[in-house]
Amino acid sequence: MSVFYAPEIQQDATMYTMNEDTSKYCIQVLRYEKGDEVLLADGRGHKITAVITDDNRKKCVVKILSSETMPAPARALRIAISFTKNASRIEWFLEKATEIGIQTIIPLVSQRTEKEKFKPERLQNILVSAMLQSQQFYLPELQEPQAFDKLVKNNKDPQRLIAHCLPEQKTPLQQVMQPAKDTLILIGPEGDFTPEEIKLALDEGYVPVSLGDTRLRTETAGMVAVTLMNAC
Amino acid sequence: MSVFYAPEIQQDATMYTMNEDTSKYCIQVLRYEKGDEVLLADGRGHKITAVITDDNRKKCVVKILSSETMPAPARALRIAISFTKNASRIEWFLEKATEIGIQTIIPLVSQRTEKEKFKPERLQNILVSAMLQSQQFYLPELQEPQAFDKLVKNNKDPQRLIAHCLPEQKTPLQQVMQPAKDTLILIGPEGDFTPEEIKLALDEGYVPVSLGDTRLRTETAGMVAVTLMNAC
Repeated sequence: MSVFYAPEIQQDATMYTMNEDTSKYCIQVLRYEKGDEVLLADGRGHKITAVITDDNRKKCVVKILSSETMPAPARALRIAISFTKNASRIEWFLEKATEIGIQTIIPLVSQRTEKEKFKPERLQNILVSAMLQSQQFYLPELQEPQAFDKLVKNNKDPQRLIAHCLPEQKTPLQQVMQPAKDTLILIGPEGDFTPEEIKLALDEGYVPVSLGDTRLRTETAGMVAVTLMNAC
Repeated sequence: MSVFYAPEIQQDATMYTMNEDTSKYCIQVLRYEKGDEVLLADGRGHKITAVITDDNRKKCVVKILSSETMPAPARALRIAISFTKNASRIEWFLEKATEIGIQTIIPLVSQRTEKEKFKPERLQNILVSAMLQSQQFYLPELQEPQAFDKLVKNNKDPQRLIAHCLPEQKTPLQQVMQPAKDTLILIGPEGDFTPEEIKLALDEGYVPVSLGDTRLRTETAGMVAVTLMNAC
C-alpha cells in the first residue's frame, strides 16, 4: 500500500484533506478510489491508516481509522556535509541518506565550499519522497547552512567525528563508532577541509575517521558515512 | 597530479601516445604542456609516471619514466545486480561502486528485471572516469548480463550472499561477512526476487543477508552492499 505525506495532520484528527499535489498523485496517478485504504505519514513518526471518503482529485478527503507511533531511532545520526557545486550530486546524497537512515543534515560551509545557496523546498521534496519510498515515518531535518568554525565549536553531540583526506592517523569509522551515542560527522568539500579547519576540529575533540582506502567524492563520502554509522 | 587512462599501453613501452579524447582532455582542457609530468593508469594495476614530449591536442605523446604495480585487492568482491529501468540510477551505482571499491559487476537478469539491454561503451566510460577520479589503478570488470538461475548455479565463489526483502530470517551483512573470502552478492530488482528465485539461491547455499532496517531502492542496496563488504 502506498504511503502519502500528511504534514499538517493533527494528532487527534478524525478526517483529513490531502493537499492538491498529494490528492492528484493519489487519485489521478495511482487511481485510488472512494473506499480504498491508504497509509499516511506526518514525518513525525505517526503511521496513520485511513479510508478515502471523497476521491476528489484536488482535495482528497480521508477518514482516519487508526494511528500508530513508530519507534523513534535509538540514537540521532547527524551529518554536516559541504554541498557540491553540482546540485544533482547533493540531491542524490539527500535521497540516499534518507533511504539509508539519517536524522539531521547540516549544509556545511567550510573555507573551500563552493556552494552555499540552495532551494530548500526542492530539497525538502526530495527528503519527503525518499522517506515515503523507503517506508519510513520520520522525516530527516534539513537545517540551515552553518559555518564550519561555529558548528564545530557549538555542537554538543557526545560523539563527534571528522572524515578528512590528510594522510594523518585515522581509524576506520566502523572501528571507532560507539553505536549507542548521538553522533555528528563532518564531511568536507571537494578539495577537503583546510589544515586549519582539521586542526580546529581535532583541538575540539573530534575523532578523525577513515571511510575506506579510496578517494571518495563528497557525496559518496557522505553516503558511505551514513551507511557505516547505521551499520554499527 | 591528474591520472590519465592508457588502456593500450604495453608493459615494456618507453613511449606512449594518448588517444584523441584523452589528449584533448589533457592538453586542451587541463592545459598540460610539454615537459609536464603525468600519471597513467592502464586499469590493470599499473601506475605509470611519464613526461609529455609532444603536447599535441589530438595525439599527446609521453615518455615513460617509471611504472609501478599497485597491490591487487586482497579478495575479489563481486556484485550481481538487476539493472533499473531508469538508466541514470544504475549509472550512478556504477560510479559509486567503482569509487568505493568493487572488482566485478554482473548485470543480473531475474524474473522481475525490467532492463536487460544497455550501452556497454557508455557504462565502461563511467567506470573509467570513476577509477581515475578515485585514484585507483584496477578497472572493475563489467560482465555480460547473466540469467539469475544460471549465475546462481554456476558461480563458484567461496562466499555467496543474497539480499532479498522477504521478512524471513536474515543476518546483517556485516555480521556474516568473512572478509578474507572472494565474495559474490546478489541484489534484486525493484519488486525483489521471486520466492522461487530466493528458494533456489538458498538451496544452492547462498546466505541471506540484510542491508539495514529500511526499504532500499535497487541502486541504493547495491551501494550499501559494496560499502559494507569493503568495510568488513
